[in-house]
Amino acid sequence: MPAYRVDLAYDGSGFRGYASQRGQRTVQGELEQALATLLGSTFDTAVAGRTDAGVHARGQVVSILTEQPVDIDVTLRSLNGILGPEIAINRIQPVEEGFNARFSAIWRRYRYMLDCGVAPDPLSRHLAWHVGPGVDMNRVRSATEPLIGEHDFSSFCRSVEGRSNVRTVSEARWEEDGDFRRFWVRANSFCHQMVRSVVGHLYDVGRGFADPASTESVLDSKDRSMVTTVAPPHGLTLWEVGYDEP
Amino acid sequence: MPAYRVDLAYDGSGFRGYASQRGQRTVQGELEQALATLLGSTFDTAVAGRTDAGVHARGQVVSILTEQPVDIDVTLRSLNGILGPEIAINRIQPVEEGFNARFSAIWRRYRYMLDCGVAPDPLSRHLAWHVGPGVDMNRVRSATEPLIGEHDFSSFCRSVEGRSNVRTVSEARWEEDGDFRRFWVRANSFCHQMVRSVVGHLYDVGRGFADPASTESVLDSKDRSMVTTVAPPHGLTLWEVGYDEP
Repeated sequence: MPAYRVDLAYDGSGFRGYASQRGQRTVQGELEQALATLLGSTFDTAVAGRTDAGVHARGQVVSILTEQPVDIDVTLRSLNGILGPEIAINRIQPVEEGFNARFSAIWRRYRYMLDCGVAPDPLSRHLAWHVGPGVDMNRVRSATEPLIGEHDFSSFCRSVEGRSNVRTVSEARWEEDGDFRRFWVRANSFCHQMVRSVVGHLYDVGRGFADPASTESVLDSKDRSMVTTVAPPHGLTLWEVGYDEP
Repeated sequence: MPAYRVDLAYDGSGFRGYASQRGQRTVQGELEQALATLLGSTFDTAVAGRTDAGVHARGQVVSILTEQPVDIDVTLRSLNGILGPEIAINRIQPVEEGFNARFSAIWRRYRYMLDCGVAPDPLSRHLAWHVGPGVDMNRVRSATEPLIGEHDFSSFCRSVEGRSNVRTVSEARWEEDGDFRRFWVRANSFCHQMVRSVVGHLYDVGRGFADPASTESVLDSKDRSMVTTVAPPHGLTLWEVGYDEP
């Protein structure tokens, strides 16, 4: 069967997340409805990162298996005509039949943005969690470091029965730009609400509600109730997904 | 009289520009209405850059002369409560009575953002002019260079009878970041529609509709009809205003 890799971006504000849900407006729902209109035949999709309601994507990847080969240029233009401006299809390329956007991915990278200004920045208010001044970045940074490496992230995840929450984090760092603090985090994969729970914990540390040294004990506890703050979805963007080069 | 400098940002999408106009929603109109409610006495304002309808600001500056001294913290919080989230007051500080946001400014700096992606980026669609691929940045850059220095910008301005269009441009450069091209331009001041007309011309050059060497002859002509493309307002942001340090 012909297989394609689709690279897409979306403003998550108006969607109940990526994954289809009956009666809800979702990215998958919109995309598959558009594909059904265009292809007029059956197809199957897989996604690299099932983003939650309100979470954005810059470099989301979806793989599609179709019955018939697809005219890439026409499909790209037609999908953008139907799905824009909230969803943008940036590229469609043919891939080997074995390529699966979810299972072939070797890492995901997210950005979480804090706005520490006195008032929320009007131009980025849909992209950043406005926390105001008074977040101590030295505390935040020292609480961030222990996240790197392989850990059981059960304390930071909405658990799914019988699934492991062991993940390997290869990047976790903060970038400062004016009033913005950007958290870049990369891992082989993420469990449910992991980035938002990690940011919630780091925010608590930065505000003085939790100890900078507590990250290790929170990880060790494997106890979801140790993390009380979950950062809101609109500050989160799925930035990039990594695959082995073919 | 007590004088204050107010630093503010706004999303220009929902405003008919900065300057008050009867029956229209403007930034000045909203700001002065809020100030009237809070101060309950007469006051006078001046603005560094009178942005057009749809143009944004990150570092706009307004000066205010009041009859009575103002409680800065209370005013800052109250203004943000009334004006957010489209307008953000980032700072209010007392200044010498002689300070005037418009006449004391020694330079203004604007950013214009092009989006050269296949589809408009959903997360920046309110901040960038989507022109798609195919803008030749080498052509654009060579057409940008002659703008630096002191010139009569009549070809790039909506003229006002009896006013000089001579301006000194101290910065005009392009920054590339993925599909985005950011034009940074700084001058002592700008005449009406100058940045958008300059970007319109540079875009025409980048697309091959005008010659890279034409910037000098367009400047020399002092003929507004030489520039046929005016870039749309939503790509433009007043970034920063410079003053002599007191």
